[in-house]
Amino acid sequence: MTTRVLFAGKPAAWDDYREPLRKACADAGLTAEISPDMGPPESVDYIVYAPNGPLQDFSPYTGAKAVLNLWAGVERVVGNDTLKMPLCRMVDDGLAEGMVEWVTGHVLRHHLGMDAHIHGLNGEWRDTPPPLARDRAVTILGMGELGQACARSLTALNFRVSGWSRSPREVPGVTTYHGADGLRPALCEADIVVLLLPDTSETENTLDAEAMSWLPRGAVVINPGRGPLIDDDALLAALDAGQIAHATLDVFRVEPLPTDHPYWTHPQVTVTPHIASTTRPASSARVVAENIRRGEAGEPLLYEVDRARGY
Amino acid sequence: MTTRVLFAGKPAAWDDYREPLRKACADAGLTAEISPDMGPPESVDYIVYAPNGPLQDFSPYTGAKAVLNLWAGVERVVGNDTLKMPLCRMVDDGLAEGMVEWVTGHVLRHHLGMDAHIHGLNGEWRDTPPPLARDRAVTILGMGELGQACARSLTALNFRVSGWSRSPREVPGVTTYHGADGLRPALCEADIVVLLLPDTSETENTLDAEAMSWLPRGAVVINPGRGPLIDDDALLAALDAGQIAHATLDVFRVEPLPTDHPYWTHPQVTVTPHIASTTRPASSARVVAENIRRGEAGEPLLYEVDRARGY
Ligand SMILES: NC(=O)c1ccc[n+]([C@@H]2O[C@H](COP(=O)([O-])OP(=O)(O)OC[C@H]3O[C@@H](n4cnc5c(N)ncnc54)[C@H](OP(=O)(O)O)[C@@H]3O)[C@@H](O)[C@H]2O)c1
Ligand SMILES: NC(=O)c1ccc[n+]([C@@H]2O[C@H](COP(=O)([O-])OP(=O)(O)OC[C@H]3O[C@@H](n4cnc5c(N)ncnc54)[C@H](OP(=O)(O)O)[C@@H]3O)[C@@H](O)[C@H]2O)c1
Repeated sequence: MTTRVLFAGKPAAWDDYREPLRKACADAGLTAEISPDMGPPESVDYIVYAPNGPLQDFSPYTGAKAVLNLWAGVERVVGNDTLKMPLCRMVDDGLAEGMVEWVTGHVLRHHLGMDAHIHGLNGEWRDTPPPLARDRAVTILGMGELGQACARSLTALNFRVSGWSRSPREVPGVTTYHGADGLRPALCEADIVVLLLPDTSETENTLDAEAMSWLPRGAVVINPGRGPLIDDDALLAALDAGQIAHATLDVFRVEPLPTDHPYWTHPQVTVTPHIASTTRPASSARVVAENIRRGEAGEPLLYEVDRARGY
Repeated sequence: MTTRVLFAGKPAAWDDYREPLRKACADAGLTAEISPDMGPPESVDYIVYAPNGPLQDFSPYTGAKAVLNLWAGVERVVGNDTLKMPLCRMVDDGLAEGMVEWVTGHVLRHHLGMDAHIHGLNGEWRDTPPPLARDRAVTILGMGELGQACARSLTALNFRVSGWSRSPREVPGVTTYHGADGLRPALCEADIVVLLLPDTSETENTLDAEAMSWLPRGAVVINPGRGPLIDDDALLAALDAGQIAHATLDVFRVEPLPTDHPYWTHPQVTVTPHIASTTRPASSARVVAENIRRGEAGEPLLYEVDRARGY
């Protein structure tokens, strides 16, 4: 029997995903038909989903067994009232690798004080070497798939890494904290703080004026998580007051970041345009195919979202 | 019996080294006297040495059993004709860690195309993510202590790493080449090339116009090794021709780099003022003390320099 899979992403994405999805399904031993145009909604078995695509009303898809999100973040679909079937988020090697590279790169950049060299020293031979990573404290807010992958990379470079999550977590080589009470001790010694939390009602403004005041003066903020995790006005004020020395931001409440937003021109802000990581077609197609195989075999799905928790 | 150790570095360095050296010698079980002023030269047993210090004539030190260099590079002492005793170079954890951090940071910086973000995109949302490190080839020239440490860090991040040395080397996860004939294949696929060779008569101008022509167009050069490894005029020409996209240079033929040198102002050159790594007093003092202990116990010295080879 043929499994009928709807591709519900932007039309341009279909060009990238068509071959990888077909190949991954064949490799998983599935007989599947996959297309952005599957005819009657009630005939669809699985929906491969990107929140920026055309599909926003799931109610006609009465036979669909799961919605398989192509993104790691689900904040734009998890609250959709028409969604009654299980929702899975994306966890894939390529996504984690990209995030590890971006986070490790920007942590090292701030650690080494590279910006002064990149802007140019104007002939000044200021040759005091930076401290070693073993003397630099990095705190990661969010110890999930991506936070833990980044923690592994940073501990391998000898950074002193702390992590913060909702529930208690033991992570080798990492000092861990959890829950509302754990935030202050997680932040109070951090030279560099990296945000890798999901966007939920609970995580909004995790880094507000109070939390920023807990950081040591001159700390650096790196946000590859989601825009709403930071109170933007409080961040701009903390930058101007010198409490935060620099912010490197990949994600924003509104994306693309509006051209007149102060982040674009603030001298202590680096904007990267949501490029920290992206789902790569080949590796994510394998995750999608594996979940379809599991669904068809009656096995538990991978990376199912807890909709009450919101991630 | 007291071992008599002369500290022959810059007077300012003595302030940093006095306590660490005395502690490390005591920890090694040595009864040692250490100072920059040891009285009669013929009474000195060991010389702790920095090439930028006052001592350039070793001939009065007729009883000295070894010269223990505080630097990794020995090019400023290895050719000294008055040096008749064994010469050891510095290999220490702090030195390797600093180099790994600097090299990994600058490789990731170029890999991620960070400079565009640091200079600022002027409101342009150019959101094509960079390729993954697994699709980026890095070649390290010099597979010694530091080259291998950097190779381990870069392979852990999934970079495709190749290495080049004088003699054949097997390094896990690294494609290795050696000798004059190995240079071209080592370079011909490198997106990024890192120089970690010692400065010897053989390595001078390793990266000359011909070697640069073997690199793929648009490659990036990173030099934390020594200035003479690169033909500066050829590099400037290759940058202007677009054959080399960028050079990040930590070391120069003349240091401090003269204020009127074109590297300071070239838009595709980043100058860092010889800060990639430095000998750290605490960890290097332990290496010095261990070598004195070995010398006194009649055991072979660590990191002895092959003076004919020059490193
Ligand atoms: N910029 C980009 O290109 C990009 C790319 C991919 C992903 N992302 C972002 O990265 C986020 C993290 O991804 P992931 O795969 O690592 O997610 P994940 O595995 O679900 O991990 C989320 C982590 O956040 C913690 N958390 C959630 N709510 C919390 C709260 N109220 N207080 C404290 N900790 C809380 C979780 O705690 P528990 O461990 O207790 O559950 C978990 O450790 C995604 O949600 C997405 O927003 C960004
Ligand atoms: N910028 C800084 O702050 C800083 C700090 C520390 C060190 N350094 C520089 O880094 C250099 C490397 O240090 P290290 O401790 O890694 O030295 P090392 O252990 O002696 O390694 C040197 C490497 O270069 C190779 N090599 C030497 N001559 C060669 C030739 N003619 N052709 C091809 N390969 C050749 C050696 O080959 P074999 O393996 O066959 O011997 C070896 O792999 C030092 O000499 C110093 O100049 C810079």
